[in-house]
Amino acid sequence: MEQGKLNSIADVEGVTVGHVTLEDDLSETEAIRTGVTAILPHAGNWFEEKVPAASFVLNGFGKTVGLVQVDELGLLESPIMLTNTFSVAAVLQGTMNWMLRENPAIGDSTSSLNLVVGECNDSYLNSMRRMAVTPFHAEQAINNAQKQFEQGAVGAGKGMICYGVKGGIGSSSRIARIEDQAFTVGVLALTNFGRKEDLAITNWKTDAPAPDKPDGSVIIVVATDAPVDSRQLKRLAKRAAIGLGRTGTSISNGSGDIIIAFSNARRISHQTSETFYSSEILRDDHSLMNELFQATVEAAEEAIYQSLFHAETTTGRLGRVVEKGLFN
Amino acid sequence: MEQGKLNSIADVEGVTVGHVTLEDDLSETEAIRTGVTAILPHAGNWFEEKVPAASFVLNGFGKTVGLVQVDELGLLESPIMLTNTFSVAAVLQGTMNWMLRENPAIGDSTSSLNLVVGECNDSYLNSMRRMAVTPFHAEQAINNAQKQFEQGAVGAGKGMICYGVKGGIGSSSRIARIEDQAFTVGVLALTNFGRKEDLAITNWKTDAPAPDKPDGSVIIVVATDAPVDSRQLKRLAKRAAIGLGRTGTSISNGSGDIIIAFSNARRISHQTSETFYSSEILRDDHSLMNELFQATVEAAEEAIYQSLFHAETTTGRLGRVVEKGLFN
Amino acid sequence: MEQGKLNSIADVEGVTVGHVTLEDDLSETEAIRTGVTAILPHAGNWFEEKVPAASFVLNGFGKTVGLVQVDELGLLESPIMLTNTFSVAAVLQGTMNWMLRENPAIGDSTSSLNLVVGECNDSYLNSMRRMAVTPFHAEQAINNAQKQFEQGAVGAGKGMICYGVKGGIGSSSRIARIEDQAFTVGVLALTNFGRKEDLAITNWKTDAPAPDKPDGSVIIVVATDAPVDSRQLKRLAKRAAIGLGRTGTSISNGSGDIIIAFSNARRISHQTSETFYSSEILRDDHSLMNELFQATVEAAEEAIYQSLFHAETTTGRLGRVVEKGLFN
Amino acid sequence: MEQGKLNSIADVEGVTVGHVTLEDDLSETEAIRTGVTAILPHAGNWFEEKVPAASFVLNGFGKTVGLVQVDELGLLESPIMLTNTFSVAAVLQGTMNWMLRENPAIGDSTSSLNLVVGECNDSYLNSMRRMAVTPFHAEQAINNAQKQFEQGAVGAGKGMICYGVKGGIGSSSRIARIEDQAFTVGVLALTNFGRKEDLAITNWKTDAPAPDKPDGSVIIVVATDAPVDSRQLKRLAKRAAIGLGRTGTSISNGSGDIIIAFSNARRISHQTSETFYSSEILRDDHSLMNELFQATVEAAEEAIYQSLFHAETTTGRLGRVVEKGLFN
Repeated sequence: MEQGKLNSIADVEGVTVGHVTLEDDLSETEAIRTGVTAILPHAGNWFEEKVPAASFVLNGFGKTVGLVQVDELGLLESPIMLTNTFSVAAVLQGTMNWMLRENPAIGDSTSSLNLVVGECNDSYLNSMRRMAVTPFHAEQAINNAQKQFEQGAVGAGKGMICYGVKGGIGSSSRIARIEDQAFTVGVLALTNFGRKEDLAITNWKTDAPAPDKPDGSVIIVVATDAPVDSRQLKRLAKRAAIGLGRTGTSISNGSGDIIIAFSNARRISHQTSETFYSSEILRDDHSLMNELFQATVEAAEEAIYQSLFHAETTTGRLGRVVEKGLFN
Repeated sequence: MEQGKLNSIADVEGVTVGHVTLEDDLSETEAIRTGVTAILPHAGNWFEEKVPAASFVLNGFGKTVGLVQVDELGLLESPIMLTNTFSVAAVLQGTMNWMLRENPAIGDSTSSLNLVVGECNDSYLNSMRRMAVTPFHAEQAINNAQKQFEQGAVGAGKGMICYGVKGGIGSSSRIARIEDQAFTVGVLALTNFGRKEDLAITNWKTDAPAPDKPDGSVIIVVATDAPVDSRQLKRLAKRAAIGLGRTGTSISNGSGDIIIAFSNARRISHQTSETFYSSEILRDDHSLMNELFQATVEAAEEAIYQSLFHAETTTGRLGRVVEKGLFN
Repeated sequence: MEQGKLNSIADVEGVTVGHVTLEDDLSETEAIRTGVTAILPHAGNWFEEKVPAASFVLNGFGKTVGLVQVDELGLLESPIMLTNTFSVAAVLQGTMNWMLRENPAIGDSTSSLNLVVGECNDSYLNSMRRMAVTPFHAEQAINNAQKQFEQGAVGAGKGMICYGVKGGIGSSSRIARIEDQAFTVGVLALTNFGRKEDLAITNWKTDAPAPDKPDGSVIIVVATDAPVDSRQLKRLAKRAAIGLGRTGTSISNGSGDIIIAFSNARRISHQTSETFYSSEILRDDHSLMNELFQATVEAAEEAIYQSLFHAETTTGRLGRVVEKGLFN
Repeated sequence: MEQGKLNSIADVEGVTVGHVTLEDDLSETEAIRTGVTAILPHAGNWFEEKVPAASFVLNGFGKTVGLVQVDELGLLESPIMLTNTFSVAAVLQGTMNWMLRENPAIGDSTSSLNLVVGECNDSYLNSMRRMAVTPFHAEQAINNAQKQFEQGAVGAGKGMICYGVKGGIGSSSRIARIEDQAFTVGVLALTNFGRKEDLAITNWKTDAPAPDKPDGSVIIVVATDAPVDSRQLKRLAKRAAIGLGRTGTSISNGSGDIIIAFSNARRISHQTSETFYSSEILRDDHSLMNELFQATVEAAEEAIYQSLFHAETTTGRLGRVVEKGLFN
């Protein structure tokens, strides 16, 4: 299928991505190679204008925060934040700080706030126990968001490893067309999983042996501007799992493989006096649905490869080196 | 990974498979091309000796019967039966007849009985509305079960279409080894899904255009002799979905893509005075678990291809022809 | 909360209920005390005009058919049929026969058909192994449907036992009002569960000891004319579980406690050339949602009691007697 | 059923509970009335000796952290922490700090760590936006854990409101006996939900009008020493929902009603060279299972009432008063 202009999740109108990358050599053995990545679902106030969302947990060996409420209400009311496993609390805190400042009523006269934070374990390269990420870095990542963003060993992807070579942030998009309308599916993946021998493609750039590392994870964010509701977004999320599987992994026990999908075609206002809202919803049996499914499979698969194409060789703690693995 | 001796689900000790194939030309336009396939989980009495089981619904546009109880209790107490969409009732009835005859106490002094029947829609070739399958055919399929069984356009697979060519029954197996122990994962698939252009491999035997058919489905049965419990079997079932995705489909809207997994390593007796049962369970974090995952992905993928390799060109109702599609 | 005019599920405009009751003394020891109940979701063609639906399995020791597709697509396209455990196949067959006759295209040029059949085990009073229900009885139950229907030991409820006394079919309804609009929640329950000592109310009509019977089940059908989608209907279904719990049961292991909910406020056409459909959906945070939740809890609780209030003392197989238990 | 000696969750051998309560008057209008509560699953190292666990989300308008991994692996490897909605990040951080200090290998040579934090919104009485809880308070709560613990307006319950009167922490237990063996089910609830008019019992201590407050939540922790696995613990968790429903609530839209259940009968070691582990598991069809179900319903119901019995009238921010509501 046809890619979007940027071939990234930002091809979905309104979606932007921001990174904060942390890199520091603390000692002979300790090094910081980590960061935060923020995916903003639209250009407005996310709490005031929520968007339909859903998740699918392919393998739940992960610590992603916020899915309980997304699944109940079918809504996303915050950015989707990515970081390392031990920085979930800091990023949760920073994102809350940001959101509370923008929305003074939350927790005062009204309501609460659901945040979504995904994570992978970057402790092979990063001194994860040093917890270098602070709440402020989460705020920075949100503020850094833009349509053009870097991929590879950047943001939350700084210290990640995928298929035995350098992984990190990858993104891709596909266009589904019907008659005179075009809809975009964009995917961003944080990749940190897999053994070298499992990778489905073999245009290796390196012959270096793969590092012996513990199990990893992958967080996949699917965005679309097609008018689909939360039930349908869960269907899209499952297709992203299929795209992931095509890259070669058998989804190992220790991997938190989690997909979060949202559509910003329609916004549900937080404050309103209305009883009902009107909605245009795609028919499940229309061929466009299958197009969106295929777009999701393809964009998810390519997003994972893009993380490998972009990621540069990175040296981390204990002098460990993870090499750039693939040619584009 | 290494295949089992038969490269079929019957490599799992005790598992057997039986078919009844129905073929009849009723008129110029009406033809019966359908059947029943039975997968027996072990050589004993399935109701008296239940086995751990689980299911995963990848796409629920399907009419599979029996998953509610499998999911609650984590047990299978019957054969797994496969047929066409409109014959679920007949097969359910026949399987019940068979089971009630073997187990006189069910429904009298004790308890009820949960049966599992999966289906795909074979109405492109088969006059499905004629409902040629009777309850007795289900009983025959059970009685026909053996270790060596046919694949392709046989049993429930007689009228199925997959990737635009002739589909049906396919099976494969893989061996996972640790030290001096070997465990088998066997898969049987009933394939009836996908567009020709989606198929991941291209060793075509035919250039015939693919039939224009409505959405299909696939039922995947995973068997193992590894000592895993129902929670772990659900994990295996999800890996079968990954294997399915590797054959090329994006899991279309109208496809009932359903996986049922069981282990016959341990049998739970129905009648007992005991309060507890003892169980050896595989540790999730042992490398054998990942081996079983990979075995499931590979066996599921190959089982689908095997259905194509074995299935012969079939002419059905309205003079429709579906060609053999793939070379092995 | 206020009851509807009929205090039954038929207060939801368009919903009707039909019974077929089977009663026969086959011998000194064998007796037929069973039947079929059909709940029709609206007065149109259910396949051509589907309605939003969802299910919740509180305890899955049950054999209900059809939930996989209801959960995937969020739609109901058939009546909801109730019968005894061993007659699921016959009722499935009969309902299919009825639907295929009304809809000649199903299984020919287009698509398949999802049917929903719930069951409880009436083998204490009914010679369930004799399978007295035929497919034709299912058709009759559909044809018998009307706005005014009997409750108690009738239809699928003929042989059921609840809290140690005679159970069966019960129904109730509640009205949720906002400003000038009124919405109805109606519930129908097929009750066959619970020990006498667990019942929450105690206005006993009988001192007879409770029969010693195996575990039972309860099927609860929730209907509404409020414009809620499938995600919200699952929320309603969970509230019906709360209503069930208030009658005193602790939801025993062997009970299939299953809730199916639908809204006929909006119909989704099967055949259409449209890509999207427009929908008015209730805001989850509007007070009407909580009113609907409370209406569901109350109507579910009362529907169970109504089954006891209406059910008359019934003698069944082996000379067994189950007494009328409660005064209204 | 019979209560345990303490009538609390600590009747389950090894379970202890610790509180940190924060109370401060910041200004005329701002007040801190909040805290942290820690439930420790046994007296050993929770990461090294994990216990079977499961969750059930009755209504997912909540921000509980950690359920994804609990559901996948069926294991708990940390304390269960409770706090207010805006302090989840701080408590997550503090609990991680505590766990990492005790377990130097986590995040270094091996693996990651899953933590569980539940929350309710105490912003009616507590200046929640001031985020008074620090990571250190979480550590203190863990260190404060003991068998004898306070209930009512204490720890995470300090600022909570339930049924229009003062809620907070409540606990209860029940003993299930078979022959010569006794098993305990203990429940601890953090209560912050419901309207005054919904409460099922009416032995009011106060006539004060109920505060007009936004939707609340309830977190229910179920502990047992019965040898049940994660699948069975999910069944217990659902019964706790039934106990909750009996106190009168219809489970309102804005309530995060979440149940977490664990059994410390058996511990699964983190580090091992073993492939399998042996396990004694309760048969689902043994009467003890139903006893455990009833024990869970009763202990959950009573735990909620106990939170009301123990909680004293509390004055909070903006001079708001929430009165003690119920006599024991």
